[in-house]
Amino acid sequence: MGRWEPNARGRLEQAAMELFLERGFEQATVTEIAGRAGLTQRTFFRHFADKREVLFYGQEMLRDLLVSAVAGAPEPAAPIDAVADAVVAAGGLLQERREYARRRQIVIDANPELRERELIKLAGLAEAMADALRKRGVSDPAASLTGEAGIAVLKVAFGRWLSEPGQPDLPQLMRESFSELKAVTAGQ
Amino acid sequence: MGRWEPNARGRLEQAAMELFLERGFEQATVTEIAGRAGLTQRTFFRHFADKREVLFYGQEMLRDLLVSAVAGAPEPAAPIDAVADAVVAAGGLLQERREYARRRQIVIDANPELRERELIKLAGLAEAMADALRKRGVSDPAASLTGEAGIAVLKVAFGRWLSEPGQPDLPQLMRESFSELKAVTAGQ
Repeated sequence: MGRWEPNARGRLEQAAMELFLERGFEQATVTEIAGRAGLTQRTFFRHFADKREVLFYGQEMLRDLLVSAVAGAPEPAAPIDAVADAVVAAGGLLQERREYARRRQIVIDANPELRERELIKLAGLAEAMADALRKRGVSDPAASLTGEAGIAVLKVAFGRWLSEPGQPDLPQLMRESFSELKAVTAGQ
Repeated sequence: MGRWEPNARGRLEQAAMELFLERGFEQATVTEIAGRAGLTQRTFFRHFADKREVLFYGQEMLRDLLVSAVAGAPEPAAPIDAVADAVVAAGGLLQERREYARRRQIVIDANPELRERELIKLAGLAEAMADALRKRGVSDPAASLTGEAGIAVLKVAFGRWLSEPGQPDLPQLMRESFSELKAVTAGQ
């Protein structure tokens, strides 16, 4: 074990993001990332399995939040409302770091392998919410469809929040997008 | 140019699928695929860019079908109905080859790289339908949400059709899943 480094994870993340944006994700190395953060490679690997994980480790937290929000929704809540509350709560978490999210998306969009990784993580979130719904007694295909619908809203609202300047409130955008989804599926 | 080989594409596809299932996608080589089909490597590469494309070339056709169906929907059709008609039409195309689809899915599910590829293709289909809606004058976020909703239904209905024995009619399952999506988003 090395010595304890204050905020090592945050410093590594910041250094990684700078290098990914300056030189591209492919070119940046773990040695450089650790060096720029003033830390060792060994410290890097105590926090992240590889450089890609710097961009994705937050999704574990997101998944836990979505699953526990769906599981903890009041008993009479309709499945779509349980999922909407979960996605809105995720919006609250995500919007704490807008500048980080914006820079992360630039890195992801520039690299097909990272885009594919992002999509498989999102598909996993849809499936996790569907599972949480099944545990509440929701049957299929309603459970799968509601999970997928929740992720569709999350993707679209998140994209708007990142791309449109002056979009301050992501949870609000999530709510609006759920209303919009209801309207479009009703054929309005 | 080599000589013309009758149904070379079909023979290569069949040989590839057998080898992918017998030995795994990673292990099978283009040389083996061509050999089993009784054709040359050169013939293989006239039909497919690489072995992965054997599994994905059909998605071009699917994309064209979805886009032209959305574009050609009657003028007063609600966006969700234009997308539903497109996805139901795609169901008609896909169900012509159930055994192929079932075997293909086994290969895809066994390989994370192929699963990611599949998801990025599906995301591309959602975006293509959203674009076709924008050309019909549908604004965002309705266009994006409707495209995503269409792909959510396609994924869920296709998964049911493959996994549940005795599901004969994919277009019908697509229609039912759209109704189900309407019901779940309405909070029923």
